[in-house]
Amino acid sequence: MSIKIGIIGYGYWGPNLVRNFSETPEFKVTWISDINPKRLALAAARYPAIKTSADGQTLFDDPNLDAVAIATPVSAHFELALRALRAGKHVFIEKPLTETVEQAERLIEEARKRNLILQVDHTFIYTGAVRKIRDLVREGVLGDLYYYDSVRINLGLFQPDISVLWDLAVHDLSIMDYVFPAAPVAVSATGINHVEGQPANIAFLTVFFENSAIAHLHVNWLAPVKMRRTLIGGSRRMVVYDDLEPSEKIKVYDKGITLNGTNGNKENIYQALIDYRSGDMWAPRLEIAEALRVEAQGFGHSINQGEASPSDGAAGLRVVRILEAATRSLRERGNPVELARS
Amino acid sequence: MSIKIGIIGYGYWGPNLVRNFSETPEFKVTWISDINPKRLALAAARYPAIKTSADGQTLFDDPNLDAVAIATPVSAHFELALRALRAGKHVFIEKPLTETVEQAERLIEEARKRNLILQVDHTFIYTGAVRKIRDLVREGVLGDLYYYDSVRINLGLFQPDISVLWDLAVHDLSIMDYVFPAAPVAVSATGINHVEGQPANIAFLTVFFENSAIAHLHVNWLAPVKMRRTLIGGSRRMVVYDDLEPSEKIKVYDKGITLNGTNGNKENIYQALIDYRSGDMWAPRLEIAEALRVEAQGFGHSINQGEASPSDGAAGLRVVRILEAATRSLRERGNPVELARS
Amino acid sequence: MSIKIGIIGYGYWGPNLVRNFSETPEFKVTWISDINPKRLALAAARYPAIKTSADGQTLFDDPNLDAVAIATPVSAHFELALRALRAGKHVFIEKPLTETVEQAERLIEEARKRNLILQVDHTFIYTGAVRKIRDLVREGVLGDLYYYDSVRINLGLFQPDISVLWDLAVHDLSIMDYVFPAAPVAVSATGINHVEGQPANIAFLTVFFENSAIAHLHVNWLAPVKMRRTLIGGSRRMVVYDDLEPSEKIKVYDKGITLNGTNGNKENIYQALIDYRSGDMWAPRLEIAEALRVEAQGFGHSINQGEASPSDGAAGLRVVRILEAATRSLRERGNPVELARS
Amino acid sequence: MSIKIGIIGYGYWGPNLVRNFSETPEFKVTWISDINPKRLALAAARYPAIKTSADGQTLFDDPNLDAVAIATPVSAHFELALRALRAGKHVFIEKPLTETVEQAERLIEEARKRNLILQVDHTFIYTGAVRKIRDLVREGVLGDLYYYDSVRINLGLFQPDISVLWDLAVHDLSIMDYVFPAAPVAVSATGINHVEGQPANIAFLTVFFENSAIAHLHVNWLAPVKMRRTLIGGSRRMVVYDDLEPSEKIKVYDKGITLNGTNGNKENIYQALIDYRSGDMWAPRLEIAEALRVEAQGFGHSINQGEASPSDGAAGLRVVRILEAATRSLRERGNPVELARS
Repeated sequence: MSIKIGIIGYGYWGPNLVRNFSETPEFKVTWISDINPKRLALAAARYPAIKTSADGQTLFDDPNLDAVAIATPVSAHFELALRALRAGKHVFIEKPLTETVEQAERLIEEARKRNLILQVDHTFIYTGAVRKIRDLVREGVLGDLYYYDSVRINLGLFQPDISVLWDLAVHDLSIMDYVFPAAPVAVSATGINHVEGQPANIAFLTVFFENSAIAHLHVNWLAPVKMRRTLIGGSRRMVVYDDLEPSEKIKVYDKGITLNGTNGNKENIYQALIDYRSGDMWAPRLEIAEALRVEAQGFGHSINQGEASPSDGAAGLRVVRILEAATRSLRERGNPVELARS
Repeated sequence: MSIKIGIIGYGYWGPNLVRNFSETPEFKVTWISDINPKRLALAAARYPAIKTSADGQTLFDDPNLDAVAIATPVSAHFELALRALRAGKHVFIEKPLTETVEQAERLIEEARKRNLILQVDHTFIYTGAVRKIRDLVREGVLGDLYYYDSVRINLGLFQPDISVLWDLAVHDLSIMDYVFPAAPVAVSATGINHVEGQPANIAFLTVFFENSAIAHLHVNWLAPVKMRRTLIGGSRRMVVYDDLEPSEKIKVYDKGITLNGTNGNKENIYQALIDYRSGDMWAPRLEIAEALRVEAQGFGHSINQGEASPSDGAAGLRVVRILEAATRSLRERGNPVELARS
Repeated sequence: MSIKIGIIGYGYWGPNLVRNFSETPEFKVTWISDINPKRLALAAARYPAIKTSADGQTLFDDPNLDAVAIATPVSAHFELALRALRAGKHVFIEKPLTETVEQAERLIEEARKRNLILQVDHTFIYTGAVRKIRDLVREGVLGDLYYYDSVRINLGLFQPDISVLWDLAVHDLSIMDYVFPAAPVAVSATGINHVEGQPANIAFLTVFFENSAIAHLHVNWLAPVKMRRTLIGGSRRMVVYDDLEPSEKIKVYDKGITLNGTNGNKENIYQALIDYRSGDMWAPRLEIAEALRVEAQGFGHSINQGEASPSDGAAGLRVVRILEAATRSLRERGNPVELARS
Repeated sequence: MSIKIGIIGYGYWGPNLVRNFSETPEFKVTWISDINPKRLALAAARYPAIKTSADGQTLFDDPNLDAVAIATPVSAHFELALRALRAGKHVFIEKPLTETVEQAERLIEEARKRNLILQVDHTFIYTGAVRKIRDLVREGVLGDLYYYDSVRINLGLFQPDISVLWDLAVHDLSIMDYVFPAAPVAVSATGINHVEGQPANIAFLTVFFENSAIAHLHVNWLAPVKMRRTLIGGSRRMVVYDDLEPSEKIKVYDKGITLNGTNGNKENIYQALIDYRSGDMWAPRLEIAEALRVEAQGFGHSINQGEASPSDGAAGLRVVRILEAATRSLRERGNPVELARS
């Protein structure tokens, strides 16, 4: 029997949720909610068979509803999700999970107590590209991971309530969380806001790991060109992941360095220690299923089997923990902030 | 009458100096020096008319020599330059000027006292691309400068004595120094070394300016691809400078944001404050003279006219000051370091 | 009062027609027809307010219907359009207009006699990019036109009934027809089919013009990469139009040659006659309205005002005339075929 | 003992020949000849140990000279090469070998009679990229060859004595000759000259092969951008060779079509016959030796061992035969011209 789900928030992303849950056999969308009457009318026109309500509470009160998907501004996440969980609904929620670590921890606890599924919409980890990278890491193709280095920039859309870190870096943090086995231990962030009184629209975030890996995220709402490019350096191979490439989003380079023990004489002082390796490049074929469809299926699977998804509440919390620390570091011009252990 | 110059150091860059000073009418190359006998023999074979010596002192002792160009590892810069200046020679020296701020200050003072020219080889500021950017800034085409954001990465060449900051970021710092009118006030740097006991081979450097501008430099010796790409954001226009483009190295985008005063209602909360502007792009034709040739002519001009060049000792010092502060910040995981005023 | 239109053919392109005519205020879509029951059911589900019929004749018989849009395989174009015109309906028809010159001439005559609008869906000429190119040509920015050179290749979709010329080159021929003021006089085409018994899947077509211009079209269904790149050379400027670029689809180069009268001496024999000009590049901002929307509005305007559109039957005929001649030339391995004057 | 060689023609390409033969151990450059006194003086200044002469005959008369390399305009090739061979010298000669098939045949015969080596400078076939393509073809990686499709365009350098076919297409013809096992049987060429009275500066050449393969060459001296891009389609894999890529010049795509025997029903008429295959892409590491160096070594090897090189006189003749036929076809607007069998 299909899971009955309601979508709360029919703005930018909500329509994608309605479409994907509608086309996933495990689900039946029975409600759409939005506080904005125009958007609600639009939803009603497109989906005459789905009930609509301006108030999310109507959904929580429907005893036939099994789950809700929350696609509101992040400031409403915590309260809506809490009420949904208390009403016994499984929750699928947009990224980032919450505005604070404390809120995330409370939602996780609430879901745990009631045996409900709490899943965060970390969309990228359900793409063919990121899943392929994770496979390459797991199979040891990349060797030891040296660094994760991402540039995610474009012009707009300035958000009034959250900084560019919470809007764009969240994507990379969720990818890192999924791909990197090591635990992050500290962050240093810098940034700037070019609109007075508004959150930072450019930010640079370094994440230090327990081992010798490092991550750097580079996000910007005020760039003349759009870039979505991530380098992942490993001891055996290195990956360039360019999400804007229509095909060949992932390129695997057999490039790197090899340390050798020979003592360099003065003549070859620069080359003595290190050899550079430059071999083939390979762009593996990727699965092309829409990420949100895969994700919806996973949410259904989690509900039906009671299993955690890779973007469960704990994953959402780990990402929020880094964002919270980064926000503090950014205010202090890069002053490093240690991350509490999970 | 032409200026007689000797080149000290005939390794990677020295041959370019010999070739360019040889072909610049203001100069006559009379000496080449290198402590390595093989390199010296190579120089002698290529330039039978130029005298060679294993010892730089021979050059300083030649009363007919007017100037020296120093292209040795940076650790030898200070002592050689000091001896050259004390011997009354004008000095052209590779970047970075010295290993420390103190050394740079002493060289500047020494040159000042003796009325000698001290010029640092900040090559990029003599390229057609960077000079065009500076013109665009000066003429107000870009408006107020918002940010400088550079990625300068490739595989190799790991240096044993200096970190990637001193090898690669130095280029961007010299460009910034030339192009940005505002003064930097603090830095935060992070990075990592993947070869034990060696200097950082990946580094990320944020530079804060006295106004609302910010700069970010991103350097890496362990990248699978080569990139040389700088974004410069202004209130009126933004520039993408890609030094690897065979043509169209500079693209000027009529893109950006415009703040408007209308009070947003709830419906348009995201769009109320900010309008996004997306107009034409323009790639100006660039001068294609070899930078080092332009630079050599400028050195000759400075000597003959007694005028400072845009990459004089003071410029070299400003760059070294940032590098020194960045090195400290990197050791402290991004802890911000204030820059002393010049 | 809005124009009542029915769409015949709800396969690959038909849904786009339904969507665009539905959202164009001048039109009201009242019928959808398709001989395939599944597609018809799909249409009915998506558009419950629109009537459906398996037989196009039902539409022709509806006295309240003003116009039809035909999106069937090209083999059905002529008969359906003829019946529609005879039933007094205006006709919007997919490219290419017909399978033969004779059919095109008969449709044009039929529409003329009945004072009906016959418009071909030459989509590209309604894009911001092609309209900008036409403006540049008309305003003399490019100078005299020297050549049109297009590469339009990808993997698939092999068509069983028409060659790659009729599927892909038709786009370029319609662009040329719109942009180039000169008249084509002859063609030479070559090509090959890699599937036995099927039409050519690779073709190369040269079009000769009455003046010194030339066009070359390069189409391929069996290419490993997708390309949509057109060069347009003029005496004053040259354009690169890359339809796959997300932004900057049109680049205008101030490049070319200048003939000079000086007699070259033997030393400069190669440079004596010709100077090469290499100036700025400029990517104008383009209108981003969906082409099919602009086209639908134009069809409405033509019906209401009785004015011909730039892709009227005569334009469709000119394109078919070249395709017919090219098909003959291709069979004869490039043997040139003269084009009859319109 | 090293082979003594003289270079005739010290213009654009001659200096590369002098440098490469000088640095190839098998050779010793003893003469440079050029009818232009300035160029000859330049050669003498750079290479004081090499004798110079304004007259090639001086070289032919030197009994100690073993070989000559001819880098003059093509109009002088035949006579100089003939005199050199008659004087008993081995001949290395720029592409294209001669102006006519007849001249090429006479040079081949002259070399054969005297047991001398005649090698044409088909540079590209000595690059790592083209040698890799040939390996891929020979090892069956590409399967049956379907097509060779090349675009070779840029702005300038207009040649006064030969058309763009003889200047640029010659490169592709030599690559095809080296890579494609099948024999060409006919050509169709079109083109245009934009400078009155001068040879064609844009040309399009189709080459038909004895099997179902086809080649198309696209050359242009009047293009706003530089392109050097070749597609090679095979039944098993397809190659994109972009000579302007700094790395990854060769990309091998596991893409193509598979024919299947199932009878399509009406619903799937387009997909019934053909399946599209889209797998990994792979960019093999390439040898990076300078082509001219490899070529010089090969010339030395041929002389010492009496073995033919892959760019011997016969290869040069095959290329000239196509160029001669193409020139005729171009004059006749694409009229196909059969190629005589070798």
